[in-house]
Amino acid sequence: MRILFVGDVVGNKGQEMVQTYLPQLKRDLKPQATIVNGENSTAVGRGISQAIYKKILQAGADVVTLGNHAWDNREIYDFINSTDKLIRPANFPGDHVPGKGVTSIRINSASLAVINLQGRVFMNTLDDPFQKAEEIISEVEKQNNFIFIDFHAETTSEKRALATYLDGRVSAVVGTHTHVQTSDAQILNDGTAFLTEVGMTGPANSILGMKSGAVIERFLTQRPGRFEVEDNGPGILSGCVIDLDDNTGLAKAIKPILISKEHPYMG
Amino acid sequence: MRILFVGDVVGNKGQEMVQTYLPQLKRDLKPQATIVNGENSTAVGRGISQAIYKKILQAGADVVTLGNHAWDNREIYDFINSTDKLIRPANFPGDHVPGKGVTSIRINSASLAVINLQGRVFMNTLDDPFQKAEEIISEVEKQNNFIFIDFHAETTSEKRALATYLDGRVSAVVGTHTHVQTSDAQILNDGTAFLTEVGMTGPANSILGMKSGAVIERFLTQRPGRFEVEDNGPGILSGCVIDLDDNTGLAKAIKPILISKEHPYMG
Amino acid sequence: MRILFVGDVVGNKGQEMVQTYLPQLKRDLKPQATIVNGENSTAVGRGISQAIYKKILQAGADVVTLGNHAWDNREIYDFINSTDKLIRPANFPGDHVPGKGVTSIRINSASLAVINLQGRVFMNTLDDPFQKAEEIISEVEKQNNFIFIDFHAETTSEKRALATYLDGRVSAVVGTHTHVQTSDAQILNDGTAFLTEVGMTGPANSILGMKSGAVIERFLTQRPGRFEVEDNGPGILSGCVIDLDDNTGLAKAIKPILISKEHPYMG
Amino acid sequence: MRILFVGDVVGNKGQEMVQTYLPQLKRDLKPQATIVNGENSTAVGRGISQAIYKKILQAGADVVTLGNHAWDNREIYDFINSTDKLIRPANFPGDHVPGKGVTSIRINSASLAVINLQGRVFMNTLDDPFQKAEEIISEVEKQNNFIFIDFHAETTSEKRALATYLDGRVSAVVGTHTHVQTSDAQILNDGTAFLTEVGMTGPANSILGMKSGAVIERFLTQRPGRFEVEDNGPGILSGCVIDLDDNTGLAKAIKPILISKEHPYMG
Ligand SMILES: [Fe+2]
Ligand SMILES: [Fe+2]
Ligand SMILES: [Fe+2]
Ligand SMILES: [Fe+2]
Ligand SMILES: [Fe+2]
Ligand SMILES: [Fe+2]
Ligand SMILES: [Fe+2]
Ligand SMILES: [Fe+2]
Repeated sequence: MRILFVGDVVGNKGQEMVQTYLPQLKRDLKPQATIVNGENSTAVGRGISQAIYKKILQAGADVVTLGNHAWDNREIYDFINSTDKLIRPANFPGDHVPGKGVTSIRINSASLAVINLQGRVFMNTLDDPFQKAEEIISEVEKQNNFIFIDFHAETTSEKRALATYLDGRVSAVVGTHTHVQTSDAQILNDGTAFLTEVGMTGPANSILGMKSGAVIERFLTQRPGRFEVEDNGPGILSGCVIDLDDNTGLAKAIKPILISKEHPYMG
Repeated sequence: MRILFVGDVVGNKGQEMVQTYLPQLKRDLKPQATIVNGENSTAVGRGISQAIYKKILQAGADVVTLGNHAWDNREIYDFINSTDKLIRPANFPGDHVPGKGVTSIRINSASLAVINLQGRVFMNTLDDPFQKAEEIISEVEKQNNFIFIDFHAETTSEKRALATYLDGRVSAVVGTHTHVQTSDAQILNDGTAFLTEVGMTGPANSILGMKSGAVIERFLTQRPGRFEVEDNGPGILSGCVIDLDDNTGLAKAIKPILISKEHPYMG
Repeated sequence: MRILFVGDVVGNKGQEMVQTYLPQLKRDLKPQATIVNGENSTAVGRGISQAIYKKILQAGADVVTLGNHAWDNREIYDFINSTDKLIRPANFPGDHVPGKGVTSIRINSASLAVINLQGRVFMNTLDDPFQKAEEIISEVEKQNNFIFIDFHAETTSEKRALATYLDGRVSAVVGTHTHVQTSDAQILNDGTAFLTEVGMTGPANSILGMKSGAVIERFLTQRPGRFEVEDNGPGILSGCVIDLDDNTGLAKAIKPILISKEHPYMG
Repeated sequence: MRILFVGDVVGNKGQEMVQTYLPQLKRDLKPQATIVNGENSTAVGRGISQAIYKKILQAGADVVTLGNHAWDNREIYDFINSTDKLIRPANFPGDHVPGKGVTSIRINSASLAVINLQGRVFMNTLDDPFQKAEEIISEVEKQNNFIFIDFHAETTSEKRALATYLDGRVSAVVGTHTHVQTSDAQILNDGTAFLTEVGMTGPANSILGMKSGAVIERFLTQRPGRFEVEDNGPGILSGCVIDLDDNTGLAKAIKPILISKEHPYMG
């Protein structure tokens, strides 16, 4: 079983990278499951729309995950309950959160559960992701041979702590949110694939996908200002590919993917 | 001009990696300047001692930098003012901060200024690192052909913002503090080498260098507990090597270094 | 039904104020229930010990509540499970948290439930206090005529939000943690008594009960330093008295109490 | 010398309270200087406009101070440099911050400097308010007999630390920002009047001036939502009156002011 995961798609440039490279990646890598984080995929880099969600599916994604920006484009409230393959962090609190935080993909006779969770350190105080992971895993582990977690979190410590906590019980934990890929793709001691941060898919000459000027201005002045998505310059696509053992559901390999001006795609 | 930079040395395992590999790296890479971040280099992973500082110099470092843990081992107050090659973040506030935040290394007829700065997002409210960088650069740029900055900060955005802000005015900005190397080593548009995070040098099977169990316990219980440095298991050394143009002082190349069980040192 | 509540007892001076004035207050006000927050009651201002807990009971408290410092003195692990009248914030996460977050006091034929909860804004990410309040209230409201909540939280907004959320369902919500009494004691629209912050009981010439010098030094230098409880100078006792309607369980009156050099106790 | 200070005016209800009661307070208390914090004085509770600024002056204010919301209504950029009596926190960073952080009022032969500063704990990382206070005081203390500071900050500790740090060097330090008045009005050991938080002027049945429902909803769901100013229900005016010694410039008395449904104005 092979999973292809692509990190936070940001703005038009991110969409362009997905449309250009996702089909190629799928053709070359032949993953059975393709997952894309779309929390910044609107033109303004905040949230997702139904049209963009469909474009990401058409480019080859089986599941789209989200993060802290899930609700920024309020259109999501209109369609999240009517889709099956768009998930938001499972640990948003309350009894009536729109959408869901886990979904399954059928792959021949097997099944992959995809879970989206959000961290809490330096972020909103959602429900405990460790506890929520436990709950969901105990629900889905019987019907699913494989479990993939997109853990959307700020700190390296919370990400590695969750992965280590779940080591041997899930197929993979891959981090998103900080938008810069880390170089620590690895299989933990008990068989879970882990990558602290997969990185973003969007404009390379930017800060988190935003035009650098306004972000720097904010640091210099500490006064409010509008951030705009960077639409110019080269793009980057960040992802990873994970191979799972069909018998154990655990990981055999995890490899980062980086397509950029400096690392042109070679196929 | 070639600079070798090694990220946060954590505990005994970090020291062991430095003693084992720094001499080899220097022999093979032949850097003119070697800089090591030592903010976690005591046996307990907090601060630095004079004995450890000397051991790092003996292994080949020309300058040792620090970070938010600079003052955790109070012995530093006894010796920081009598050394020339140990620097702490320049933007600690006040008129009488022990030590200094910048030093210079003579390399034949040239000179390299090494600056240590600390970020503020999700960290202590030190003086503004952007402003402080400006001040120090204007002081040192005449006497120094090259300027290297160890920017000890939490978020990817603050790190890239400072590097972009200084692009073309300094030789390199390399991030430390989050302990997991990022895969974005690059030369910015105007010639400054940049790497969001160089990563740590210490115990690989750990969370930030600490035993995983206690860190996970803290996440699960939110109650205080003692973190202990992980002394067992394989080690990792994280660093980078940067080549600078002797005429412009700007960067020609930056390459990450990672030595671990998965990436054994090949020389 | 009258409740007397006394805010965070800090160090020896706080203990002294409790021993001196709590008996007088009880004699004069004749409360049926007396509750004291003891999270800073050790000599060093962090946590509680069994000896100190007993002294607070002996001075007249029926229940002692805690807060974020609950676990700072590890002795608590030895005795919290064997007492009935010491409670810690109910929303510490996990299945096996020592102690409990709610207790009941028998008052003739009636019963008062005392709940301790902790906020999350700018504090540790405990379980959701709003949700936890719901759970506990639905458990205890049938057996208890009155419900008092000590909500240990940092911000005025989280405190007022919880009180407004529970308005009409509990007898009183009184805030602790910021150590400075607010002047907004009031009965909310649907009958719940509310005071954003009851204030501390300890050394008046201090910052949160600590010696001012070291706290100021921390602000000036942003470097670690030891805070010490202020044992000198005049003391302050902060509290409030709440009158409840025996039929409805809701509030008829809430009045702040402040005993200090400027406001000597008049009886 | 008597100063009247009124805390954060929020929305239309705040404006109404100012228009109704400020003239009465001035007539009854006869302050020589009247200062009003207007950071939330627009109809939406964020920032200030020129029209509103003028209305506050017409109601009797001599100086209007601001806080973290200073720049929320971008109209301020158009007029702040052309007014003399509107000040924003002095410690916003950078060389070209519009407006200024200190102003002076002539009172017969004497002069009062009014300084606005903002805290940093749990707030934006402005320049160090302790350091900035030092700088401004050394500039203004010769030409001014009295110095008043509106310290806009979140925590009780930062507020009291600054006041204690400046005790004996300024006439008064009064806190704003948390919108709920504290009951600790006092004269510190060396003569500076201090009140941790003066409180807000606006809609009483609200959370920080905002409609309770949306604020509670945010706590319950952790999802973004629009906060709206509460325009209904009774209003509150929070302030204080400070008497200064004309010879020393230090405080003789400080008394809180609270006008609300529960505390109707008696004159
Ligand atoms: Fe993102
Ligand atoms: Fe995110
Ligand atoms: Fe470190
Ligand atoms: Fe650090
Ligand atoms: Fe406390
Ligand atoms: Fe507390
Ligand atoms: Fe305000
Ligand atoms: Fe404010």
